[in-house]
Amino acid sequence: MATRIIIVGGVAAGMSAATRLRRLDESAEIVVFERGRHVSFANCGLPYHVGGVIEERSSLLLQTPQSLRSRFALDVRTEQDVTAIDREARTVTARDSRTGTTLTEAYDYLILAMGGTPLQTTPAAGDAPPVVTLRSIEDVDRVTDVLASLPAATAARAVVMGAGFIGLEATENLVRRGLAVTLVQRGAHPLSPLDPEMASPVADELARHGVDLRTGTTVTGLTPTGVTLSDGADITAQLVIDARGIGPAAHLATAAGLRLGPSGGIAVDGHHRTDDPRVFAVGDAAEKTDAVSSEPTLVTMAGLANRHGRAAADVIGWETGHLDAPPAAASPALGTAIVGLFDLTIALVGWSEQRLTAAGRAHRVIHTHPTDHAGYYPGAERMAMKVMVDPDTGLILGAQIVGGRGVDKRIDVIATAMHARLPAVELAQLELAYAPQYASAKDPLNMVGYIADNLASGVTDTLQWHELPAAMAAGATLIDVRSPQEYEGGAIPGSVNIPLDTLRDGVDALPDGDLIVHCQVGQRGHTAARILAQCGRRVRNLDGGYLTWQAGTHATERVGEPASA
Amino acid sequence: MATRIIIVGGVAAGMSAATRLRRLDESAEIVVFERGRHVSFANCGLPYHVGGVIEERSSLLLQTPQSLRSRFALDVRTEQDVTAIDREARTVTARDSRTGTTLTEAYDYLILAMGGTPLQTTPAAGDAPPVVTLRSIEDVDRVTDVLASLPAATAARAVVMGAGFIGLEATENLVRRGLAVTLVQRGAHPLSPLDPEMASPVADELARHGVDLRTGTTVTGLTPTGVTLSDGADITAQLVIDARGIGPAAHLATAAGLRLGPSGGIAVDGHHRTDDPRVFAVGDAAEKTDAVSSEPTLVTMAGLANRHGRAAADVIGWETGHLDAPPAAASPALGTAIVGLFDLTIALVGWSEQRLTAAGRAHRVIHTHPTDHAGYYPGAERMAMKVMVDPDTGLILGAQIVGGRGVDKRIDVIATAMHARLPAVELAQLELAYAPQYASAKDPLNMVGYIADNLASGVTDTLQWHELPAAMAAGATLIDVRSPQEYEGGAIPGSVNIPLDTLRDGVDALPDGDLIVHCQVGQRGHTAARILAQCGRRVRNLDGGYLTWQAGTHATERVGEPASA
Repeated sequence: MATRIIIVGGVAAGMSAATRLRRLDESAEIVVFERGRHVSFANCGLPYHVGGVIEERSSLLLQTPQSLRSRFALDVRTEQDVTAIDREARTVTARDSRTGTTLTEAYDYLILAMGGTPLQTTPAAGDAPPVVTLRSIEDVDRVTDVLASLPAATAARAVVMGAGFIGLEATENLVRRGLAVTLVQRGAHPLSPLDPEMASPVADELARHGVDLRTGTTVTGLTPTGVTLSDGADITAQLVIDARGIGPAAHLATAAGLRLGPSGGIAVDGHHRTDDPRVFAVGDAAEKTDAVSSEPTLVTMAGLANRHGRAAADVIGWETGHLDAPPAAASPALGTAIVGLFDLTIALVGWSEQRLTAAGRAHRVIHTHPTDHAGYYPGAERMAMKVMVDPDTGLILGAQIVGGRGVDKRIDVIATAMHARLPAVELAQLELAYAPQYASAKDPLNMVGYIADNLASGVTDTLQWHELPAAMAAGATLIDVRSPQEYEGGAIPGSVNIPLDTLRDGVDALPDGDLIVHCQVGQRGHTAARILAQCGRRVRNLDGGYLTWQAGTHATERVGEPASA
Repeated sequence: MATRIIIVGGVAAGMSAATRLRRLDESAEIVVFERGRHVSFANCGLPYHVGGVIEERSSLLLQTPQSLRSRFALDVRTEQDVTAIDREARTVTARDSRTGTTLTEAYDYLILAMGGTPLQTTPAAGDAPPVVTLRSIEDVDRVTDVLASLPAATAARAVVMGAGFIGLEATENLVRRGLAVTLVQRGAHPLSPLDPEMASPVADELARHGVDLRTGTTVTGLTPTGVTLSDGADITAQLVIDARGIGPAAHLATAAGLRLGPSGGIAVDGHHRTDDPRVFAVGDAAEKTDAVSSEPTLVTMAGLANRHGRAAADVIGWETGHLDAPPAAASPALGTAIVGLFDLTIALVGWSEQRLTAAGRAHRVIHTHPTDHAGYYPGAERMAMKVMVDPDTGLILGAQIVGGRGVDKRIDVIATAMHARLPAVELAQLELAYAPQYASAKDPLNMVGYIADNLASGVTDTLQWHELPAAMAAGATLIDVRSPQEYEGGAIPGSVNIPLDTLRDGVDALPDGDLIVHCQVGQRGHTAARILAQCGRRVRNLDGGYLTWQAGTHATERVGEPASA
């Protein structure tokens, strides 16, 4: 008899499961229930259709129920809200949201792929600007309607709630459409997973494009003309985008008595199986295992959703005799992510320094400011790179990169290295492709590996930007080894300028006590530190140099500013 | 007493060794002998200065003896030709090429970093066009002089000997300067490390830019007006660039009785030490260990040269008490490489299919044609990707990628995976950064992992383009599952068109015997093969689809053409 599989949710995870199941089992009955009007749409493209980058709405619709029927013989039913699971009877009940009729369907296997749901309720008022999320085609249609109804987009104002990935994408695309945007962020800086000094260029980029960023505040209410913030400010807006965090859409699982994990997501084993052996959960509604902590976590990324959907199909395929071997267990989740913001690319993987510190987990930090390709070839762009390393195992715990070209490449290599559990020092050994328009003979990641090696072997000792004030207060002398021109262009208060190339001659004249050296990005500082250390001085190199110190200090100053200027 | 280290060769490997040694040991005496007039120059940038991309000649000069003295206290001596090593006395003899005087210097450690040397002698004649290599600043100066002396670059013609990396870069840059270029390649296609179907787009790109590519021939002599080829053709040229292969510059080591390896390079252990414990060899003159075969090999890449130079310094630093632990042994060499050619990027790592076949080494081949980022986001560019997999270990043996944006990223991830010895199926598990302008939710490398998994598990069986003629001759039926429009636009001779979406209805009407399916790139073919296999048919999917077949067939046809049209 044909295996009957019901899938709840027809976007990334659900549709990956459905199509893989069909390829494994031509005879299976595969039914997909989707709450919305569309399946398999390009949800990561929605903000870009708002901005007109993706011109055609049809480009977002990757598949239709018809195309999925003809190619994969799938029974895809849209506008069907699955309201209950009877695990004993192995049935689900779905309600047709157009007609209100319900029907009950039996399954042999059930795959839950409901995705995420907003964590916070949207403030509502009668005569107020529309508040729209950016999670479905219907959402985008609504934004398009609102924008079309505005007298002139260039005079229009929007508020975006939440400066996470989608909030930044929404902001960029509304600016692209000519709107004045206020971006409201509860946290101290945009993109909370970043550390403050790494978020500093993000705030700069927003300012450079005229975005009114309000941090440390939230939208508390709607008014007839806009929104009110928790700090008391009133912001005029004709459109409000709700891009605040989402949580797992686990209500259906809860109601069915399936176990949830500590994160609030549906608990699953390494094969995406819930505590009911006939029920799988994948995508944003399901828990993952964190690669850094090995604890259950939530990671809402399309790549993982697709991968886990397919993997659940493999488990079913194996159990029903359509695969010869069981699939491997899921790899722990790294949380690799990337976002474009105007001319900036921001990418991250693993844990931040803040998170490691909060968790009491030992770590070393490395900041660098390499160019994407050889400096002697035109067009090299500088990026800021940060890598966290476990001092005990030497493993990479996380990384953040902010820059332009070449950011995506480096985060992918780091994610691969983390997946493979390569120690950070092994980055030095990677044989990455080099020609001057693509990279440097010593790639930025090779350099991170060398720094990790120098830290691990004690060849160098570094100090973080946020540790500098205490060190100087304790009497350390800060030596700026950059050129006099660089020093005059902007220097750290209290530093003395001794250019690297004259340092050997001036060692004897240095004051007693601890020394800290710094240059622009950290490299000359390293050579300076080596010279001084071999003269018997206790010396640390300011990690990431002036640029990291400056970014961190700006971030600190921004937090100090009143939230509404 | 200070350790005295002599380094022969002051470019990539030598200078990396020298600067690292200084950072480890402030008191060491470090002498660098360089044969040429310049040290630490950007040798990979030379062709781009010829083309005017790197406008300033000074951009190529990264360091000078003066700057290296003031920053690193190095004793750098240019135009010094080291003529002999006395290993017993631990001295080298160097000849000043300006004055002809010689001097002898003692060492505690000697690092040989002489680089490569042309393998073939340049044909010469009295009244003939100048023949120039592109290996030094002096070479580039000479080319600049020749170009300046030509009446009008647009009427000028050049011959480039050798269509390897530098030959392609030279060709592009001469075309950029307006010259008509004939590119002469001994092998059957440009870039010999590529397999023929992967080199096909390279030949197309050369043709698209008006380059006269002559394969299967060599320059046998110079004439007053140009060159003569081995196939008898006479080519007019006012300039000849010799970009043919180089070999290790090992004569000094040979004369000193140091052991050479089977490749002809200086034999070294995992710590870059020759059979004389006081003598190290790094860079293009030294052997590496091949990552695929574990045999000694030559890999002439700047990244390895830099890395091994630094590593040799670490060994000396450890032996002289400046490092607490011995450095790790060198990783085997993958031979990762990349080259830009007009709008194309070509990258490779590890072994080719041809090389694996010639060595009798079992392998699976995977061809794909992904776009660099999500197809629904504007500007997606298609690339051709090929990955070779060991069927026994599952390890990646090599990869080749030809396309535009995103090629460098994917080769670096594969190189990282190979370094980490991740099996090919693990590529499916990599959590690579996804937003639609950077990648796809299922990255091209994830897809390669899935295909590797399907091949390993027997879910799919594929056929290579070069195996198709024999399979069809043996009676297999070839089914093109693309749309009728695609079929009419160009199809494989002998194929029948049954679009995928109608395949289920037509299964009963198919002829008996073996089936082969294909689509444009391989993905629909996979679904078709699954449908047919589950109907009990023996079926194979043509790997890489029509695009790979077309590229391979074009390559075969080109070889069949007379070398001079």
